[in-house]
Amino acid sequence: MTNDRLLRALRHEPVDTTPIWLMRQAGRYLPEYRRLREQAGSFMNLCQTPELACEVTLQPLRRFDLDGAILFSDILTIPAAMGLGLHFVPGEGPHFHHPVRTPEAIGKLAAPDIADDLGYVADAVRLIRRELNGRTPLIGFAGSPWTLATYMVEGGPSKTWQNIKALLYNEPRAMHQLLDLLARTVTDYLNAQIAAGAQAVQIFDTWGGVLTPAAYREFSLQYMQRIVQGLKTAPDGSHVPVILFTKGGGPWLEDIAATGCDAIGLDWTIDIGTARRRVGDRVALQGNLDPMLLYARPEIIRAQAAAVIDDFGPGTGHVFNLGHGVTPQVDPEHVAALVDAVHEHGARLAS
Amino acid sequence: MTNDRLLRALRHEPVDTTPIWLMRQAGRYLPEYRRLREQAGSFMNLCQTPELACEVTLQPLRRFDLDGAILFSDILTIPAAMGLGLHFVPGEGPHFHHPVRTPEAIGKLAAPDIADDLGYVADAVRLIRRELNGRTPLIGFAGSPWTLATYMVEGGPSKTWQNIKALLYNEPRAMHQLLDLLARTVTDYLNAQIAAGAQAVQIFDTWGGVLTPAAYREFSLQYMQRIVQGLKTAPDGSHVPVILFTKGGGPWLEDIAATGCDAIGLDWTIDIGTARRRVGDRVALQGNLDPMLLYARPEIIRAQAAAVIDDFGPGTGHVFNLGHGVTPQVDPEHVAALVDAVHEHGARLAS
Repeated sequence: MTNDRLLRALRHEPVDTTPIWLMRQAGRYLPEYRRLREQAGSFMNLCQTPELACEVTLQPLRRFDLDGAILFSDILTIPAAMGLGLHFVPGEGPHFHHPVRTPEAIGKLAAPDIADDLGYVADAVRLIRRELNGRTPLIGFAGSPWTLATYMVEGGPSKTWQNIKALLYNEPRAMHQLLDLLARTVTDYLNAQIAAGAQAVQIFDTWGGVLTPAAYREFSLQYMQRIVQGLKTAPDGSHVPVILFTKGGGPWLEDIAATGCDAIGLDWTIDIGTARRRVGDRVALQGNLDPMLLYARPEIIRAQAAAVIDDFGPGTGHVFNLGHGVTPQVDPEHVAALVDAVHEHGARLAS
Repeated sequence: MTNDRLLRALRHEPVDTTPIWLMRQAGRYLPEYRRLREQAGSFMNLCQTPELACEVTLQPLRRFDLDGAILFSDILTIPAAMGLGLHFVPGEGPHFHHPVRTPEAIGKLAAPDIADDLGYVADAVRLIRRELNGRTPLIGFAGSPWTLATYMVEGGPSKTWQNIKALLYNEPRAMHQLLDLLARTVTDYLNAQIAAGAQAVQIFDTWGGVLTPAAYREFSLQYMQRIVQGLKTAPDGSHVPVILFTKGGGPWLEDIAATGCDAIGLDWTIDIGTARRRVGDRVALQGNLDPMLLYARPEIIRAQAAAVIDDFGPGTGHVFNLGHGVTPQVDPEHVAALVDAVHEHGARLAS
């Protein structure tokens, strides 16, 4: 591989500079993405057509000196494949025609056939690997069982998570049944991505942070741990590093590190230096610039990126990223400034 | 006063049982509120008519054995009085016709005249005190400068706080100018509530938790500390306890306690026992049941309420509350179950 900095940092091996990739590095802030999205007709068509998903995945790597590609897809491919009727309401995000709100509805759910129903994902992974041709590693991903369940139960975005929490508190057995099904499905799904060529995987637990500490451990972290334990090695026998990202998970870093994951993704509400002191070198750390800093002037972006790198401190084990995804109004020039600043400053610290 | 449990707990004095009040204890989940709201024509008319604000404030105390009344009002009365054109978009919440997004716009802002523009608030406080007739204390409140600023800059609800964060990162001096104006205004506003009879005050920092640790201290906590330091005693010379509530503030409890506040409001993402071990008895703690537990069956509500009280442990200094407000679809019978459970279980622990 031409550039294996990302995998080296995840394995705590020495690096020449801090590697960087960005959550939602492919997406609406790029004009070439918007053009392709318009041609594709629908967002899900982009995800489900391997050639298009491959093209979108590679777009940011043509512009920026990123150290990783991430499969272009959506966390909701799994519930979509379970027949919940995924659709997107403009300005509102994802909705399901058939939310799952009762023990009876949960009892009727079945795992999708990963090869048949989600084969387009493995196809995309294979195609991207071929096109990347070793330039950078390819990261696969999935939503966490809890986060998938929030969308499946709420049926759309929520500010309170009223329905899933009512289910969690009133029907914990049904909740566990749903999460168990999702954990098995996510494990198979990530293993299919690994078999097809994903060289690292990230689990996005976007909504774990809305739980109480006890409920987080029981209903989110426990299932992510099962997935971590169920992941297979790459076709060449090498270990595939897994990154757990719980937005709002700062209070629970020690518990997250204990799952056996290789890295923890941090949002911006915790200092990465504090996080490192808490988990030591048991795991690598990924993050954690406030994504809104991309709306600041380039010199401010550069200074703040350097501050994050300095806060992490000397030694390997840091993968630079935002604390959450790139948002649609970001100027691509600002992303370029960030990527270059990270490499420049990271090299200074590494040398 | 007939029932001064709340003030005693805030002062760390012995109590016969755990006092309880609830954020948004008056509001849409009560049919009598919905009737009055319909008659009033608009939400702001409810807030701005002292007789109506008084009636709404007292409604939950007629149903439940609560240990405190909280002034019915809105945190956005201050920016409304500054001429930003507050209005409510159904299903979307508050919006401003004239958001404040530039240093120039901030430079043109002036503090409202508390007596003239916001006199209806002090009038409501006086009327509620008279009607309460010593039954329970009356809590006054205001939004934190940072939280008020988020609405003023964004102009409406936001999921990313893109505009205010761009301002914060690009124009920190203008941001400080705005926050300084708001801190002075909130101080005067709370002092007017105290002069009119508020016996405790709470500062709602709903959006402090979306900041980085450094930005939280510089742009939110610093200004709440100034307010704490600027509050006057009650007309009878007694100290008026102040509660700081930062949603998502769990990581920063030590810093919050150091402001000189009397109590910290906790959301549900931290265990109250953990919080108490961190801040000791320097401050009282308020909270922190997951508000969504009100959608659970009454026996589950009772068990979880008892668990929060047990987690806090023996001794005074605990004011029971939710981790955020009561939401509109809650069954009032569930609130009754919670209030009774807290008093029953709290008495067991106190005796």
